[in-house]
Amino acid sequence: MSGRAREVVASAEVISGYATYIDLVRPLITGQTVISTGMTKEVDRVSRALEAACAGSTCALVCSGDPGVYAMAGLVFELCRENAVPVGSGPEDLFVEVIPGIPALCAGAALLGAPLMHDFAAISLSDLLTPWPVIEKRIQMAAQADFVIAFYNPRSKKRTWQLDAARQILLSHRAPETPVGLVTSAMRSNEAVVLCRLGDLDAARADMQTTVFVGNSRTFVYHDRMVTPRGYKDKYDLKTD
Amino acid sequence: MSGRAREVVASAEVISGYATYIDLVRPLITGQTVISTGMTKEVDRVSRALEAACAGSTCALVCSGDPGVYAMAGLVFELCRENAVPVGSGPEDLFVEVIPGIPALCAGAALLGAPLMHDFAAISLSDLLTPWPVIEKRIQMAAQADFVIAFYNPRSKKRTWQLDAARQILLSHRAPETPVGLVTSAMRSNEAVVLCRLGDLDAARADMQTTVFVGNSRTFVYHDRMVTPRGYKDKYDLKTD
Repeated sequence: MSGRAREVVASAEVISGYATYIDLVRPLITGQTVISTGMTKEVDRVSRALEAACAGSTCALVCSGDPGVYAMAGLVFELCRENAVPVGSGPEDLFVEVIPGIPALCAGAALLGAPLMHDFAAISLSDLLTPWPVIEKRIQMAAQADFVIAFYNPRSKKRTWQLDAARQILLSHRAPETPVGLVTSAMRSNEAVVLCRLGDLDAARADMQTTVFVGNSRTFVYHDRMVTPRGYKDKYDLKTD
Repeated sequence: MSGRAREVVASAEVISGYATYIDLVRPLITGQTVISTGMTKEVDRVSRALEAACAGSTCALVCSGDPGVYAMAGLVFELCRENAVPVGSGPEDLFVEVIPGIPALCAGAALLGAPLMHDFAAISLSDLLTPWPVIEKRIQMAAQADFVIAFYNPRSKKRTWQLDAARQILLSHRAPETPVGLVTSAMRSNEAVVLCRLGDLDAARADMQTTVFVGNSRTFVYHDRMVTPRGYKDKYDLKTD
């Protein structure tokens, strides 16, 4: 958590977030009003925070990772637009500050080693708001272009086949030996890290809290660390970089 | 900067980093030995830190953003492998901890609004270690797959044509009205944010410190914020998410 995030949570009048994340900032909560709702009530949470903000309270919307990567920041602006709330720094405007954080793809990569050292794509496997053919095309293009891939939302109780479908697509472009890392709940008490090969990837090891990293054609494993080299020039001289 | 990063820099015996980044952690430096070199001396810096670490000192390698995204973490493991240094937690091993940070793509996105709310690709336009045809193919695939794109290293004094070449490729897949954001030195004193359209993107506004964000087909601008909506389903009901 950055200093700026701490500062804003500590000084806000209203704090809104999913109960689990509110618990993570509990030490910073003194007299603030807390709007805490269940996991699927994101729109509800953001709407209530927006109402409070439009009524003049300073509000902190709390989420995990980075708020701009598959998280809450976009929803704030979508709802402002929907409700014609002007955003800006004028007297009639709602002032919105997005405070960046460490996204799951960086926290997970750090635990694995250094898989994101070269070009990468982040793809959510949730087909709740995106039709599967769009997701499928992205996996195909990312595989062809030799991107390292970080899959978000690989699996949930109801969505059980998507990660295996992704694996099948990837196997037509990458070797079965391609390193794959699964990181669940990075930097939390129930953190779990699994390293395997694309050919052996067992989708059942992933859940809602897992980020799945698939290496590019050059990614290697060295002493249990997953590492993507920086370059494609086979003989680049490290000494004269 | 996270609490863990502060802690490690403050307690290390040796600190290694590019002079500019050493300055950023100056308040944490008390009696530590500092290895500070020029910008292009990355391999030199990491090698010297590794030597010190192998000789028994605890070393902190400092860089900006996230160490795992186009930065120093991978080079540590590459050099360990090259020099057959075992990495792990056993008595004969070198213990390496990668501490994640806020990458430029999150810091920049936060200043722009919420451009990374849906699937995205990070592509470096530097052809120093990667042949241009590989980069070009990635741009083409990312454009076709409708990824939001974050371009790293868009331009330097010597590399002046790559961003414009990328723009040309993108224009064959995306509308000239597609929102583009350029963020230079995010969260530093010389921070600069420019919002424009793909058709009008002036490559000369980017430099080595710039991250260039290109929206997907749904990205919109609302009150000077660049926002990518979460879904592709045109009529998804925000209320029943």
